[in-house]
Amino acid sequence: MDFTLNDRETHWRDRVRAFIESEIRPRDPDYHAQQAEGDRWKVLPVIEELKEKARAQGLWNLFMPPSSGRVPVDDSVAFDGPGLTNLEYALCAEEMGHLEWASEVFNCSAPDTGNMEVFHRYGTAAQKTRWMVPLMRGEIRSAFLMTEPDVASSDATNIETRIDRDGDDYVLNGRKWWSSGAGDPRCKVAIVMGKSDFGAAKHQQQSMVLMPLDAPGVEILRHLPVFGYDDAPHGHMEIQLNDVRVNAEDAMLLGGGRGFEIAQGRLGPGRIHHCMRTIGVAEEALEKMTRRLLTRTAFGKTLAEQSVWEQRIAEARIDIELCRLLCLKAADMMDKVGNKVAQNEIAMIKVAAPRMALRIIDDAIQAHGGAGVTSGYGLAKAYAGIRTLRLADGPDEVHNRAIARAEFGKYRVR
Amino acid sequence: MDFTLNDRETHWRDRVRAFIESEIRPRDPDYHAQQAEGDRWKVLPVIEELKEKARAQGLWNLFMPPSSGRVPVDDSVAFDGPGLTNLEYALCAEEMGHLEWASEVFNCSAPDTGNMEVFHRYGTAAQKTRWMVPLMRGEIRSAFLMTEPDVASSDATNIETRIDRDGDDYVLNGRKWWSSGAGDPRCKVAIVMGKSDFGAAKHQQQSMVLMPLDAPGVEILRHLPVFGYDDAPHGHMEIQLNDVRVNAEDAMLLGGGRGFEIAQGRLGPGRIHHCMRTIGVAEEALEKMTRRLLTRTAFGKTLAEQSVWEQRIAEARIDIELCRLLCLKAADMMDKVGNKVAQNEIAMIKVAAPRMALRIIDDAIQAHGGAGVTSGYGLAKAYAGIRTLRLADGPDEVHNRAIARAEFGKYRVR
Amino acid sequence: MDFTLNDRETHWRDRVRAFIESEIRPRDPDYHAQQAEGDRWKVLPVIEELKEKARAQGLWNLFMPPSSGRVPVDDSVAFDGPGLTNLEYALCAEEMGHLEWASEVFNCSAPDTGNMEVFHRYGTAAQKTRWMVPLMRGEIRSAFLMTEPDVASSDATNIETRIDRDGDDYVLNGRKWWSSGAGDPRCKVAIVMGKSDFGAAKHQQQSMVLMPLDAPGVEILRHLPVFGYDDAPHGHMEIQLNDVRVNAEDAMLLGGGRGFEIAQGRLGPGRIHHCMRTIGVAEEALEKMTRRLLTRTAFGKTLAEQSVWEQRIAEARIDIELCRLLCLKAADMMDKVGNKVAQNEIAMIKVAAPRMALRIIDDAIQAHGGAGVTSGYGLAKAYAGIRTLRLADGPDEVHNRAIARAEFGKYRVR
Amino acid sequence: MDFTLNDRETHWRDRVRAFIESEIRPRDPDYHAQQAEGDRWKVLPVIEELKEKARAQGLWNLFMPPSSGRVPVDDSVAFDGPGLTNLEYALCAEEMGHLEWASEVFNCSAPDTGNMEVFHRYGTAAQKTRWMVPLMRGEIRSAFLMTEPDVASSDATNIETRIDRDGDDYVLNGRKWWSSGAGDPRCKVAIVMGKSDFGAAKHQQQSMVLMPLDAPGVEILRHLPVFGYDDAPHGHMEIQLNDVRVNAEDAMLLGGGRGFEIAQGRLGPGRIHHCMRTIGVAEEALEKMTRRLLTRTAFGKTLAEQSVWEQRIAEARIDIELCRLLCLKAADMMDKVGNKVAQNEIAMIKVAAPRMALRIIDDAIQAHGGAGVTSGYGLAKAYAGIRTLRLADGPDEVHNRAIARAEFGKYRVR
Repeated sequence: MDFTLNDRETHWRDRVRAFIESEIRPRDPDYHAQQAEGDRWKVLPVIEELKEKARAQGLWNLFMPPSSGRVPVDDSVAFDGPGLTNLEYALCAEEMGHLEWASEVFNCSAPDTGNMEVFHRYGTAAQKTRWMVPLMRGEIRSAFLMTEPDVASSDATNIETRIDRDGDDYVLNGRKWWSSGAGDPRCKVAIVMGKSDFGAAKHQQQSMVLMPLDAPGVEILRHLPVFGYDDAPHGHMEIQLNDVRVNAEDAMLLGGGRGFEIAQGRLGPGRIHHCMRTIGVAEEALEKMTRRLLTRTAFGKTLAEQSVWEQRIAEARIDIELCRLLCLKAADMMDKVGNKVAQNEIAMIKVAAPRMALRIIDDAIQAHGGAGVTSGYGLAKAYAGIRTLRLADGPDEVHNRAIARAEFGKYRVR
Repeated sequence: MDFTLNDRETHWRDRVRAFIESEIRPRDPDYHAQQAEGDRWKVLPVIEELKEKARAQGLWNLFMPPSSGRVPVDDSVAFDGPGLTNLEYALCAEEMGHLEWASEVFNCSAPDTGNMEVFHRYGTAAQKTRWMVPLMRGEIRSAFLMTEPDVASSDATNIETRIDRDGDDYVLNGRKWWSSGAGDPRCKVAIVMGKSDFGAAKHQQQSMVLMPLDAPGVEILRHLPVFGYDDAPHGHMEIQLNDVRVNAEDAMLLGGGRGFEIAQGRLGPGRIHHCMRTIGVAEEALEKMTRRLLTRTAFGKTLAEQSVWEQRIAEARIDIELCRLLCLKAADMMDKVGNKVAQNEIAMIKVAAPRMALRIIDDAIQAHGGAGVTSGYGLAKAYAGIRTLRLADGPDEVHNRAIARAEFGKYRVR
Repeated sequence: MDFTLNDRETHWRDRVRAFIESEIRPRDPDYHAQQAEGDRWKVLPVIEELKEKARAQGLWNLFMPPSSGRVPVDDSVAFDGPGLTNLEYALCAEEMGHLEWASEVFNCSAPDTGNMEVFHRYGTAAQKTRWMVPLMRGEIRSAFLMTEPDVASSDATNIETRIDRDGDDYVLNGRKWWSSGAGDPRCKVAIVMGKSDFGAAKHQQQSMVLMPLDAPGVEILRHLPVFGYDDAPHGHMEIQLNDVRVNAEDAMLLGGGRGFEIAQGRLGPGRIHHCMRTIGVAEEALEKMTRRLLTRTAFGKTLAEQSVWEQRIAEARIDIELCRLLCLKAADMMDKVGNKVAQNEIAMIKVAAPRMALRIIDDAIQAHGGAGVTSGYGLAKAYAGIRTLRLADGPDEVHNRAIARAEFGKYRVR
Repeated sequence: MDFTLNDRETHWRDRVRAFIESEIRPRDPDYHAQQAEGDRWKVLPVIEELKEKARAQGLWNLFMPPSSGRVPVDDSVAFDGPGLTNLEYALCAEEMGHLEWASEVFNCSAPDTGNMEVFHRYGTAAQKTRWMVPLMRGEIRSAFLMTEPDVASSDATNIETRIDRDGDDYVLNGRKWWSSGAGDPRCKVAIVMGKSDFGAAKHQQQSMVLMPLDAPGVEILRHLPVFGYDDAPHGHMEIQLNDVRVNAEDAMLLGGGRGFEIAQGRLGPGRIHHCMRTIGVAEEALEKMTRRLLTRTAFGKTLAEQSVWEQRIAEARIDIELCRLLCLKAADMMDKVGNKVAQNEIAMIKVAAPRMALRIIDDAIQAHGGAGVTSGYGLAKAYAGIRTLRLADGPDEVHNRAIARAEFGKYRVR
């Protein structure tokens, strides 16, 4: 074991950190100004501008694992990414977590990252050419349509969207929500999970198909605010699929009835990426809290001198250190023994990281008084965003169940 | 001691409950529709309509304590309220807490309730005629300008707004925020806390003055979102006072240098009213959670049958019962021994009630999955609203300090 | 509702409090000295001496509810108790909780209190004469044998002890543990729960029979330490019943197959008595913590001045107030609507009170440093004792389940 | 970074694990039987016997870091230890934590480990020959006398024991407690912290001197039970020093006024060793809890099938993984950048590990019902032991303060 960062780990983390501090953070006012102006569902120029810069410096597609090799459909190297390990990327992703909109600048934001991995692993050459290449170039964005409002989607066998074969087409019908990113005008394609065979075995009823966002019958009903935030221009959309037709050959991923298999493969990295960023969110909240406590005075001394805050600051520091290590360990296991063997560790950090960050952000809110619950410091928004992570990609309870069953499995008499 | 509700307590609680269920709750869709339409800072017809009904039934100004007697400036009885005790009102206020906008229908919403009490106790006949009568009739609304963005306002001696005498006028300069209700077009008057004598003893520098909202120099800078919610048309505003002139005789409450005294008197009932409603918010969240768990199925059984939820439901029920009793006890003490003697109990429930409700709402959010963090069930909004109560009228830490000092005082060797 | 103590409530509480402070607490060193000397399983003279005094002052059998009427088997009034309501007794029992061994002085200690109630409600005249009268006179003590080491006794249908009819006798076989009080040489009788009919309906298999402790075949295997405390001379014993014969007519309580019914009736008051005392334990811990913090100095100021302790002291005070009210409400309901209707409230305080006290005692331990975990202040012992209450008379989880089911019952579609 | 154990790490951990499972755990009944027999303050033959075996296999003095080199005072290599890094030792110490008395078998138990390090770093050749050699051979044991009952010893400047020079001697006067290990008849020497110069600068008043336990004037007043446990034959003693004379030259460690310096050096490894073992204690509790839940049935299904236990088991597993990683990181830092640079990480795990273990043990107790709070499964005893670690070597609050100050230091404007 070795807890010291090696040169390559330090190199990439530091480059990302430096780019954020020198290029992105100074533009934060621009970002918010552009976001506040006029229509909320639009492309923000500041993002596109910074994407160019990041790509030019090779800080691009950092999430794509080395096992991905070169994408065979294109000669360009630039968009291919440096082939970081999950561990190396984890360190970078933590940095990106410090600023709400930093990930996209590096073409590393959800759900595109997970979708690109799906294309990479399971896509046909044609599917890659059509969708993956522009995604890796940062030209389009994508969505992932899985969760449904009408059923407990934590149990994915509940999903009710139909994928019916009709001649050369599949016909899609159902209602999806939490289709994140579908509010963005650049969002061109969605991966849709549905049931193609209601009579098959429980975990073979599902398939995943590709659906152009502009296909007839795709009706975006509304955006779902998170607490009161619309997260525009990204957005979390509720979408009705009314007899949406997609060409069967173009659309099917991997094969009929293999939707569960893809979902399992996709969710591991997706979960861990969220956790990595969550560590950064927590670090940012801790820094804000610490600075605030040093500068506010009540009843004759700074808040920093009041010992209850010493305890909270220390708890925050401890909890961040604890979670960072488990997150890095899970990433390291993904690199060395694969996502499947690492699934228990991924589940653990999936539960632990948001819980930790919520506690710290909540304390930071308290330290900021009225400024904590409103805009300006970003704390209430961070709270809202992280709170969704206790539900997204499976609620805590489902992950805890899996972890518990692994324990019970050690001792159960068979 | 007697833990059974008497007839009068039951009577008023049940009437309020029935009115809410039969008149207000069925109009909730109208409320949200009217709020969503066009300009957000407007009077909602559904409210005005229901206010008429409530007033006609005598469900009006329920908060005004019996000690208030008849308001001497007006012969009308209708708007005077039934003279409920704090204990009786507590039971009614809990009912109002079930629905976000119910309080206003009964002319019982903050900050008007606290402001009316201030007028009643400390106002001159002229001040009462001009401001209190229309407030008690529900014709205008009011604001309370105390907290400031630039200082830790938990220590009210930090306040920096100036109240300078200039001839017959006071001239007000400073910046205030969290001026709740000032977004409402009906909001006509504010009580402003500032320093009229920077050289006086620490707690005698402050005064409270009345300020018409339309006075020249009153600049409403922005509304402060709470976790993304604008709380329109009520709103929490940030307000700049630029050389605002008010007539000295009209404006001064109670007397120069007595601002602290008024603040102490005002905050007791204000705090307890929030707590009463908070109990109702928690009850509503528990009901929603319970219903949800009964109707969602995952992994072969309803969520209600999964024992982790049994534990959470039970904890919620226990915590509500605990807090309700302390809230009612504090109210009973206010009735019998006065706000000052009850201040420790008020502080306790001020800390305990929001903490309890936040836990329950958070569990309810988790039980609702994605539906919990968005609109539709009102849970995320309730969370945001209650979260502010750990800061409003003094943060937990300041109340806990006061409670602790009372304990230390019992044993300290003098 | 009325949260003020009436004269009678104040009267009895104050008399008990005064007796404890003037008569019992000063003898605490004697108690510990006598306990430490020689054999641990013996009668302590200081207890017998003080019992005389308490009985002479009418501070005796305070737990016995007024509904008990006069005990018909004896003319003496003295031992009959003043007929306090549960609410009145609750206030007295809290006082008794301040000192570990105070309850017994008033003939109000478990399991005798519960057993006396059982005799009173369900006993025949002969059973009362033989066992209840000497118990109410404080001449003997008793035990209650329910829990068994080999099964999850939280589900009482698991109990395996056999009560087999053989001619005029019942023959008892089985193993019991947590037979509290059976270590005392004065302990003469046990109420034994077992199965008299393994073929009956699930809740009609059980009976309760009386068993003299000196019956042949009663083998006391060992005392069960609680953490490392033996709780001598009371003791919690593990007992083997080897073909113990009791006369069928003398022994059977209420009737064969009615053991569950008696258990339900017995456990309500038993649980609430523990809760009442637990409030007193918590108050005592809070007082010790407060005094300690005022007198210890570290890093230049007293611990009391360090704000983390302000927060903990305040939380302790709040939590005690919350629990006391719920405990009193449950007692009041038992008086007014009966134990059965009050069962939900009893379950709630059964869960809430130990949880609250453990937190406070733990903080008090921390405030005392090394002195907290050892003898001298009684905190570690109090912790150990209260920790058992999360298991005794049903673990938290079982009570929470019952509470949750009541909630679910409100909304379940039938 | 690398989270995989290398061969050497695996080798030592597995050897220790195998020795415990094959040699020590099977003798646990002997250990308890010998401990229960007759006098409690005696040498247990089972320990001495197993020490021989462990030493013969080279599983001896594993704690001694490689930097220690060979001990120059003796040619023997056998007792010198394999020179494990802190990281390697951490993995072994976790294994030792599984069984309460395992550490001593490997000559790795506190306070000897810390004391041997002190001798090694700061002792003269004569001091090493006289005390360190027999300690490293496991022939004698030792104590560390720092904490005092009369002052808040968390602030070591409060210490009041006097070390007065008188001719060739130092004369020691004062009262110490929590002198762990001083109950053992093999305990021959103590390191005593006291003040040799009350007029010096605050952190230069203290010295550490060696004191033979049999020196005249050393009066062992009593053992301090921990939650009722005497921890015999080790014991935590309260000791009065009455004019105890020690030869000045033989006794002084490092030099007058350098006691603080030694304390700082000693406490780092001491703290981390406790944390390492604590992880093992938690693992053992989790295993017991898991096994219990699988084998107990209530209300128709095993406890393992009740989802509240799934959540608790998962939380336990997560918390153990989190803490193990931080513990290993702190150890790795001690190896690579030294104890001083690692002090923040040491403080963090010092706070986090006991907190984690207490939660898990408490849940395990709950899962065991009445069996949890008594002897048999060792859970209550483990709880008591770990609870002291929130106080020993500095209470949580003091460590948290240090951690917080490091955070504040990052941003404080100088």
